[in-house]
Amino acid sequence: MSNLPLPLKGIIPPLVTPLLGRDEIDVEGTQRLIDHVVGGGVHGLFLLGSSGEAPSLSHATQREFLKIACNQVAGRVPVLVGITDTSMTESIEFSEFAAECGADAVVLATPYYFPMHQNDLKRYVEEIATELPLPFLLYNMPSHTKVCFDIDTIESLLHLDKFIGVKDSSANMNYFNKLIEVKRLQENFTLLMGPEELLAQSVLMGGDGGISGGANLVPSLYVSLYDAALAEDMREVHRLQQQVMRLSKNLYEVGPSPSGYLTGIKTALGIAGLCSDRMSEPLYAMPDERKQMIHQHLDDMGLLDGLKIVG
Amino acid sequence: MSNLPLPLKGIIPPLVTPLLGRDEIDVEGTQRLIDHVVGGGVHGLFLLGSSGEAPSLSHATQREFLKIACNQVAGRVPVLVGITDTSMTESIEFSEFAAECGADAVVLATPYYFPMHQNDLKRYVEEIATELPLPFLLYNMPSHTKVCFDIDTIESLLHLDKFIGVKDSSANMNYFNKLIEVKRLQENFTLLMGPEELLAQSVLMGGDGGISGGANLVPSLYVSLYDAALAEDMREVHRLQQQVMRLSKNLYEVGPSPSGYLTGIKTALGIAGLCSDRMSEPLYAMPDERKQMIHQHLDDMGLLDGLKIVG
Amino acid sequence: MSNLPLPLKGIIPPLVTPLLGRDEIDVEGTQRLIDHVVGGGVHGLFLLGSSGEAPSLSHATQREFLKIACNQVAGRVPVLVGITDTSMTESIEFSEFAAECGADAVVLATPYYFPMHQNDLKRYVEEIATELPLPFLLYNMPSHTKVCFDIDTIESLLHLDKFIGVKDSSANMNYFNKLIEVKRLQENFTLLMGPEELLAQSVLMGGDGGISGGANLVPSLYVSLYDAALAEDMREVHRLQQQVMRLSKNLYEVGPSPSGYLTGIKTALGIAGLCSDRMSEPLYAMPDERKQMIHQHLDDMGLLDGLKIVG
Amino acid sequence: MSNLPLPLKGIIPPLVTPLLGRDEIDVEGTQRLIDHVVGGGVHGLFLLGSSGEAPSLSHATQREFLKIACNQVAGRVPVLVGITDTSMTESIEFSEFAAECGADAVVLATPYYFPMHQNDLKRYVEEIATELPLPFLLYNMPSHTKVCFDIDTIESLLHLDKFIGVKDSSANMNYFNKLIEVKRLQENFTLLMGPEELLAQSVLMGGDGGISGGANLVPSLYVSLYDAALAEDMREVHRLQQQVMRLSKNLYEVGPSPSGYLTGIKTALGIAGLCSDRMSEPLYAMPDERKQMIHQHLDDMGLLDGLKIVG
Repeated sequence: MSNLPLPLKGIIPPLVTPLLGRDEIDVEGTQRLIDHVVGGGVHGLFLLGSSGEAPSLSHATQREFLKIACNQVAGRVPVLVGITDTSMTESIEFSEFAAECGADAVVLATPYYFPMHQNDLKRYVEEIATELPLPFLLYNMPSHTKVCFDIDTIESLLHLDKFIGVKDSSANMNYFNKLIEVKRLQENFTLLMGPEELLAQSVLMGGDGGISGGANLVPSLYVSLYDAALAEDMREVHRLQQQVMRLSKNLYEVGPSPSGYLTGIKTALGIAGLCSDRMSEPLYAMPDERKQMIHQHLDDMGLLDGLKIVG
Repeated sequence: MSNLPLPLKGIIPPLVTPLLGRDEIDVEGTQRLIDHVVGGGVHGLFLLGSSGEAPSLSHATQREFLKIACNQVAGRVPVLVGITDTSMTESIEFSEFAAECGADAVVLATPYYFPMHQNDLKRYVEEIATELPLPFLLYNMPSHTKVCFDIDTIESLLHLDKFIGVKDSSANMNYFNKLIEVKRLQENFTLLMGPEELLAQSVLMGGDGGISGGANLVPSLYVSLYDAALAEDMREVHRLQQQVMRLSKNLYEVGPSPSGYLTGIKTALGIAGLCSDRMSEPLYAMPDERKQMIHQHLDDMGLLDGLKIVG
Repeated sequence: MSNLPLPLKGIIPPLVTPLLGRDEIDVEGTQRLIDHVVGGGVHGLFLLGSSGEAPSLSHATQREFLKIACNQVAGRVPVLVGITDTSMTESIEFSEFAAECGADAVVLATPYYFPMHQNDLKRYVEEIATELPLPFLLYNMPSHTKVCFDIDTIESLLHLDKFIGVKDSSANMNYFNKLIEVKRLQENFTLLMGPEELLAQSVLMGGDGGISGGANLVPSLYVSLYDAALAEDMREVHRLQQQVMRLSKNLYEVGPSPSGYLTGIKTALGIAGLCSDRMSEPLYAMPDERKQMIHQHLDDMGLLDGLKIVG
Repeated sequence: MSNLPLPLKGIIPPLVTPLLGRDEIDVEGTQRLIDHVVGGGVHGLFLLGSSGEAPSLSHATQREFLKIACNQVAGRVPVLVGITDTSMTESIEFSEFAAECGADAVVLATPYYFPMHQNDLKRYVEEIATELPLPFLLYNMPSHTKVCFDIDTIESLLHLDKFIGVKDSSANMNYFNKLIEVKRLQENFTLLMGPEELLAQSVLMGGDGGISGGANLVPSLYVSLYDAALAEDMREVHRLQQQVMRLSKNLYEVGPSPSGYLTGIKTALGIAGLCSDRMSEPLYAMPDERKQMIHQHLDDMGLLDGLKIVG
């Protein structure tokens, strides 16, 4: 088992996977992005999650990226790795590779093809847990996986040694509030908020931090917001929250795509010169006119010079 | 390109994948099941679709199964192979393997993790089409993939040479009726109905046949229903439809699982001695009490002796 | 009880409610429309359903319209009246008024504000049934009421004397096929299909007819399609079905409104000079450019001269 | 216009409507309940909303209740009245009656039968606004009305004089956060949170208070939580939030009903002797075994003696 300090705390960005072509890693972009994010003060990295477009990458590419990224992080912060797959065998084999690469924990959403009953989901997690070489967080992401981890299911899995927490991307605050009640039952249990717009209030209510996608671009903004919420400095929370909401509106809601958050963040990273904005199929980079809107919005927010929103 | 007679016509069962353990093929069961189904008069086979639990199998297991199955079919009927994956590269590589194994066509649903816009979906299909070695059907399965192929998208793809038809598992008859209008635009375009309960009326309205899951168990029932609909013998259609509805109710709606169809059919195949009823995670075989209910239902329908519902 | 011949059979259009202003009946339009539809050979009329925008009308206006319409029908065909309301008391009182006006049966969907459990729905129907002065059909319309009548619930209500059938607007053909199995259990039980695009196949499979909205405009088309399906004349079914699909596409899918069917049909009736195209709030008549598209489509279909699509 | 101090602030319980029979008001229960709630320190009352089961009551009963309730409140706190109806005419007429009874503002959700486009919704609100005699809040309740007020729609309506705020029951915290950005654009604009489990964090982020259903039973709990959030006393917020979550779990999630919150709160009020637990059809009082569970839960929470959770 890893020496991960528990509960995990702070901002752990879901790193995008920079690409030059189909299943072709943008190696330099990856290195630059990791240095940018770690330099921005984040508390960990989450590789190959939804923001990392992991399901759209071939298995070989996922492994290649994981190796490059872990080398670049070089132990500066803890590394979490997404191992979600529709096949249990593939998830287990990838978790073993992640351990070899030096990852600290893995993150597991429900298999995302077949709808399933909570009883089967519970059994699935119990079975896979015995074969994972690292501690794991469950990842609640029903908009993409169709299946939710019911609160009762979460509770029934607390007995598993390696089960260290939950990343909740349901955007359902009542669900998150119930998770906070679960957290009272289990020492050192980690609760991380997915949507960055809900980071502040999740920390205020007792959550441990966030897997904030925008932290790929402006890590210091989310770190500052986390710090303010932890310090219960509401004035600062309100000031920074306004910036977070503005960034979300300006980058993620440009154009009609239901995966607009992902293309928005990668477009902005491309404009900022941090890495390529190439998406992995079936998503595609924005048309030029929308890129220009993003460029304008970044400029309006004062982000083009030095990418510092907090000063 | 293959010498597939177009449009495809008749009953093309979505073969289940018999398993002895996790990612361990039940080879004898597979061979027995294929002989049973082909012997029942079906017009083709669809391997590694949803009923084949393909997304739950490792890539290696999918390849192993495909080889075994193609060998066993030995050209007796055309073979269609599911190549749906969340990664375009994996889909293409698997389609190449399918061609090597002698498959006649491939079947492609939308990538099933990220929601996407129809424009992106169109571009995705156009790109992958240039790299597929075999003709392909699109597979509309929104309950599992979250994304529908809009009618306009289908129409905009008709120019692709290898695009030979659609398998529709939406269970949305109005959508299927619109597909029939599309079929008028394209010579030899194939329309196959997914849900077996809608087979008869889809053929009556102009469809070409069905990917009927129940045909794993009782192929002759669905072949007879297809023949009756084609002959516009409404008396026989009504008689056989009643049997189809009874089978669905008795096998697929036992217990609370949202994937009850799949566990129901595999349980019945196990009871019939055709193959193992082992499911692939995250689905699990039924508890014994429900297996006994399925056994009783099979007996009540007179299916236990010889598995012949039509005589 | 009325002398309604059971089961009800044929085309029973859901009459739109012609309006001159908010809660102001277009009396002449109503009379003209009724004569047009009855003259087109329909087998009954369904007043104040969804197509009649009943929920958007004040109670007083609903009563006024019912009186005018019943007078105009003057017993030429049976009259069914929608009594769905979120308040049981209002439904009952309106059913009594319908009986006074000479209606032959009432039609009841689930109350449409609160989600409810099927047990409560069953109890609700059993209670209201004892107070209705007329036979009733249940109306399955989950897209608008959020609650479905489960098949088991329908079966559990068959013991009610006045329960004479189901109008199914779910557009779920598998559900309708299950209703056909229910129909085998109950003598003279009526099954009517809502969406006109599914009329033909519902009749082919054993249904009794349709509540076809397009029959407001072209009653003879739907009557002919019904006749062809009943006669199992598949060549004619295919020919007329193509016209039905074309009409749906050309009138109901113009513009982005989720209630496009309703505005489309009323716009066409206005262009045809049958009645005003005024909608009841919260729906509004189409902007002029879309009206012109509808006008063009009607012209293309040869419907502007005499409104006869079948010749 | 009323002399309502704006923005509205604090806890404004959605009063349940006590009933003795179908459309028969429990007058004494109503009076007792109002005194209990007002005595508990709430800042206003919301009559005839969802918790008031308004859509299930006849129009006559709604008027009768409104008169009784306004008389009992007697100006002690501001009174808001739900006027949502599927008919615009009925909404307007009821708003006039509310004004006559002395209500201070009305609350308007979207008409809840027909799905509609946001353009039509905007037009609907603009039209009805001109005829309302009182200031109004919009009520976002998509789980029951199927239609959401998009943020852009809200913004486009800010120019309406009488539009004083939004009650959001979507339970979508990201949506609420966007409303907070809207609130920055409009002086004295009121934002009230529906679900009581989200009260604390909505106030922390800048909201004005809550329409907390549980405040029918334990008004002081929600008033204390509101005060603690306003004072940014996070220790007290966490302590009281835990009680709120416990109450929700113990009262609202007993049994399978999708409207369990409503039956739960009325059952508890009945056990507490405050008013009858009679529901309005199509909802029904809980079976006795579940009532006993609620009784036990109330006892466990120490609520049976004096109904004071905060001491």
